[in-house]
Amino acid sequence: MGGSSNRIEDFSGVLDLESSLPVSATVVVPPVEIHKVSVPPKRGALQSLKQRLGEVFFPDDPLHQFKGQSFFRKLALGLQYFFPILQWGPEYSLSLLKSDVVSGLTIASLAIPQGISYAKLANLPPIIGLYSSFVPPLVYSVLGSSKDLAVGPVSIASLVMGSMLREAISPDKEPILYLQLAFTATLFAGVFQASLGLLRLGFIVDFLSTPTLIGFMGGSAIIVSLQQLKGLLGIVHFTTQMGFVPVMLSVFKHKTESLRRPKLFWVSAAAPLASVILSTLVVYIFKAQKHGVQTIGHLQQGLNPPSLNMLYFHGQFVGLAVKTGIITGILSLTEGIAVGRTFASLKNYQIDGNKEMMAIGLMNMAGSCVSCYVTTGSFSRSAVNYNAGSKTAVSNIVMASAVLITMLFLMPLFYYTPNLILSAIIITAVIGLIDFRGTARLWKVDKLDFLACISAFFGVLFLSVQMGLAIAVGISIFKVLIHVTRPNTVLLGNIPGTQCYQNLGHYRDACRIPSFLILGVESPIFFTNSTYLQERILRWVREEEERVARTKDNNTLKCVVMDLSAVTAIDTSGIEALTELKKTLNRRSLQLVLANPVGEVIEKLHRSDAMEHFGTNNLYMTVAEAVAGQSSLFKAQP
Amino acid sequence: MGGSSNRIEDFSGVLDLESSLPVSATVVVPPVEIHKVSVPPKRGALQSLKQRLGEVFFPDDPLHQFKGQSFFRKLALGLQYFFPILQWGPEYSLSLLKSDVVSGLTIASLAIPQGISYAKLANLPPIIGLYSSFVPPLVYSVLGSSKDLAVGPVSIASLVMGSMLREAISPDKEPILYLQLAFTATLFAGVFQASLGLLRLGFIVDFLSTPTLIGFMGGSAIIVSLQQLKGLLGIVHFTTQMGFVPVMLSVFKHKTESLRRPKLFWVSAAAPLASVILSTLVVYIFKAQKHGVQTIGHLQQGLNPPSLNMLYFHGQFVGLAVKTGIITGILSLTEGIAVGRTFASLKNYQIDGNKEMMAIGLMNMAGSCVSCYVTTGSFSRSAVNYNAGSKTAVSNIVMASAVLITMLFLMPLFYYTPNLILSAIIITAVIGLIDFRGTARLWKVDKLDFLACISAFFGVLFLSVQMGLAIAVGISIFKVLIHVTRPNTVLLGNIPGTQCYQNLGHYRDACRIPSFLILGVESPIFFTNSTYLQERILRWVREEEERVARTKDNNTLKCVVMDLSAVTAIDTSGIEALTELKKTLNRRSLQLVLANPVGEVIEKLHRSDAMEHFGTNNLYMTVAEAVAGQSSLFKAQP
Repeated sequence: MGGSSNRIEDFSGVLDLESSLPVSATVVVPPVEIHKVSVPPKRGALQSLKQRLGEVFFPDDPLHQFKGQSFFRKLALGLQYFFPILQWGPEYSLSLLKSDVVSGLTIASLAIPQGISYAKLANLPPIIGLYSSFVPPLVYSVLGSSKDLAVGPVSIASLVMGSMLREAISPDKEPILYLQLAFTATLFAGVFQASLGLLRLGFIVDFLSTPTLIGFMGGSAIIVSLQQLKGLLGIVHFTTQMGFVPVMLSVFKHKTESLRRPKLFWVSAAAPLASVILSTLVVYIFKAQKHGVQTIGHLQQGLNPPSLNMLYFHGQFVGLAVKTGIITGILSLTEGIAVGRTFASLKNYQIDGNKEMMAIGLMNMAGSCVSCYVTTGSFSRSAVNYNAGSKTAVSNIVMASAVLITMLFLMPLFYYTPNLILSAIIITAVIGLIDFRGTARLWKVDKLDFLACISAFFGVLFLSVQMGLAIAVGISIFKVLIHVTRPNTVLLGNIPGTQCYQNLGHYRDACRIPSFLILGVESPIFFTNSTYLQERILRWVREEEERVARTKDNNTLKCVVMDLSAVTAIDTSGIEALTELKKTLNRRSLQLVLANPVGEVIEKLHRSDAMEHFGTNNLYMTVAEAVAGQSSLFKAQP
Repeated sequence: MGGSSNRIEDFSGVLDLESSLPVSATVVVPPVEIHKVSVPPKRGALQSLKQRLGEVFFPDDPLHQFKGQSFFRKLALGLQYFFPILQWGPEYSLSLLKSDVVSGLTIASLAIPQGISYAKLANLPPIIGLYSSFVPPLVYSVLGSSKDLAVGPVSIASLVMGSMLREAISPDKEPILYLQLAFTATLFAGVFQASLGLLRLGFIVDFLSTPTLIGFMGGSAIIVSLQQLKGLLGIVHFTTQMGFVPVMLSVFKHKTESLRRPKLFWVSAAAPLASVILSTLVVYIFKAQKHGVQTIGHLQQGLNPPSLNMLYFHGQFVGLAVKTGIITGILSLTEGIAVGRTFASLKNYQIDGNKEMMAIGLMNMAGSCVSCYVTTGSFSRSAVNYNAGSKTAVSNIVMASAVLITMLFLMPLFYYTPNLILSAIIITAVIGLIDFRGTARLWKVDKLDFLACISAFFGVLFLSVQMGLAIAVGISIFKVLIHVTRPNTVLLGNIPGTQCYQNLGHYRDACRIPSFLILGVESPIFFTNSTYLQERILRWVREEEERVARTKDNNTLKCVVMDLSAVTAIDTSGIEALTELKKTLNRRSLQLVLANPVGEVIEKLHRSDAMEHFGTNNLYMTVAEAVAGQSSLFKAQP
């Protein structure tokens, strides 16, 4: 058993299937013992349904650790499952605390200025951003299973909530209604997230693919940055619309206004808190607020006020709140889950996606009752948290404590903080979301992924956030559907000296077998492609017969072998198509035999009446056995 | 090369994977020569795009007969392509004509009563049904390529058009507007059909799968039959709504009315024309119209009047006309194409789906200008046509001529035809659409197909025609998506004495290879399943390690082999997932190697940076070679 070391041969040059492929003149396949194609062991409909549902909803087998445990152990494990703090809490130590305090204070220094800024992005009062950086992290530290997630408001969800609500209600004219809808949307986001987790429908999040998100975030980042020109350039009469065109129009329109040029444009992204402090000091010392620099102004001191009475369940805007809740909910969920998984994989532990969804959902439901808006695990702050050496969710508790102290005692200090510094913080945060290298990689590897990505990008930029998202998800689903609507069929040939059959267009040394046409179907056979496959295979047969006639080959086509290795499923339309094909080819005196059908395909062939047409001796375990078996039949009846 | 004759072994009994599977104590795989996994020959992006688009839009290579022909031959072939009559016309003979006259007259005897009845189903004047059985068959006989299609109004499209238009407009109160919308919808149906053919988007029709259509037609048949109770029972104040509940309510409500019991309920389905003649005679002789039997009454004699001036392109109902056109268009197209394909396959010729769509579309566009509504190839009449021995589309011309004579001279004869005979004709025609055996077969073979079928059935019955259709198409697409969202992963084992690896749960004699975990992934790896697969494979690894620990096996798990034979495509998320998995397993000192990646997967692995992680020596052409290659590595470094 030797393995040659240099295994990949990268050769270029276009292959002409007609001329350059070797055709073996005689059958060179070594003798083959023919095996039986067995029907999978029978199972009841209920049992197979149970297994199938288990695979769909419980692929991670979440209950495996409960198996064979005593009742109290099960109870303890169950409590630990729902409250992971019970798992790591008892083993918590001083050295862990030290790391968590350092990382917690670090992310607090980011969370406070970002919280204020993102709240403005959602057209909410700045203080809501601080409220949202206090209660949700505490809830998450009890319920969440990630050790690195830094919880709080995030830019994308803030932007989307802001743009969706503002389409119907002006945050300036009806601030109370706007606030009510924001809290209500947050509640619905939480309910939606928790339900996805509870119903184990977490896979819905997977439909927002990475390419879609790259494009979506890039487009959003540009929109947000343009909007922040308002704060940076000090434009007062700014458009309230989202979208590239109106924002740009607004910017150009105001170019002619007497622009107050920002004096503090040198702010670095690396130290938002430092720049907040510095800029606040500068404004305070030079009394710049009296010279036209807009500042945050008075902020109410104190803890999160309850907001249960502000939830809005009647009237014309409930639909909007539900819609906003679902869209911001799924976006923030996607970010939170992706961030959690990324850092879990870096530290080599696993998080349970459905469980995380319940944690994030409950955190938002709780938040909506105490004046918080949508929160999730922030990518940027989680990365800082990880790098600062966080060990457990205690870093979230430390951060929340720092925010608490700020809310209780430090609010007057923000009085002189200039608005433009908040805009700068937002821009530096979102500009990092534009992923040029990721987009380039998509182009290089997968053109359809690239298409989904730029569709999301331009959709967000020129249409609206929701439309951009919808188009990109549509393209992603189309990509999946087109694969089963127009599947590849490939011509297979024998690798000399083996019983292995490979794509003739791919493996140069693969040889055709005289009198045989061996086709690999690279997709399940469904209603979407059953007609196509029938026609495509008849075309292969026609082309093969033409080729044989042209090359004056004596070995006329006698048998078509369909390699079903990649046909992992079949439905009634597919079975009908196979039966039709068998009949059509039989009328032309051609055999059709099937090689390597998987269990599900064999079962369905048997359950339908297709086996009457195929007979048991037209099914083979491998292509090699099909070729050997049919060759011996040709010899028997020349 | 011997083939054992009795090839399928059907054994039952539930298999317990844990205990009963043999585990080979030593590696029994015969020595294997290891082959290189080559990268497919490089092609430019443009060339591969061209080939891909060719497969999507021109799978049947419609231009192949033009290759290498002279200019005039190409012109002749081109004309024959667009006007198939030029192909069979010159060879037409008297013996063919004899057959066609017989079959043409036979279908005319069906088409005339059915035309009148179906027009009533669409709430149109009966004469429109005759008009629609005259011009469209003539157009089709010039453009169409099927030899057996009998063209005219059909029940499903008539029903759907009637129910959709009536939701907005009353055919009794605004008959002119209703007629205008019917012609306009017909025009849009034709435009839609012809565009699908022209843009080669014919595969959209495939999304209406057979199970969907079985359920849809069953539900429609019941709705139509219930509606016809109006005609049969002579109820005057009948609901105009579609849907099971209102129709049934209406029937029960009118039970208390003085019902005039139908005196002629013995009518057989086999001879609609005979029953029309007989019932007309009976009414005429007994003057039954004076005793409350409703008759058709006066019908205008003469040819189709032009209706170009009745097309309606402005105002509030244009949207409705477009929607009705698209839905009736796609339904009638599906019926026409399916019927054409069925009879073509019986007579062993092929029809070009996209070309047929253009023919049917042009026929409806022409029809809408001369007072015809939506027509297509009728299943029942085409079957009669086929059985009566039709040879070419001349049978349609004969039928149209018979209809012409009827319209010119025989209209007064219908004056005494009772309405209830039309209802009886409709019921006998549609009751045949209920396919109990087909539904039972779906249940037996594929539960999800069955679900799509009964959803369409109950959706049509209890909601509306459009909703039923939408739900069923949704379920069919969901079926495709769930397959790539939660794909099967199966454990493979070696079939002793071969280099073949098969599903351990399926092939009883397959054996595990010590220290190896061999997994087959039965789906492309897309964004929809990349996270799932990562988690599922880690669970397989965990379970295998637990099994090894439990059985006190000395051969700890060293290598995971992923058989990618069925992974026919991969996207950027999939590549990321493979790379992640490789890193995670490496951290646990496990090898991950890939076996039998198809061309597209190899290409994408190379184009991305995944190969940096996998290295060229972790790709193998077959599972057997992967096992052999890795085993030799284990021995080298114990």
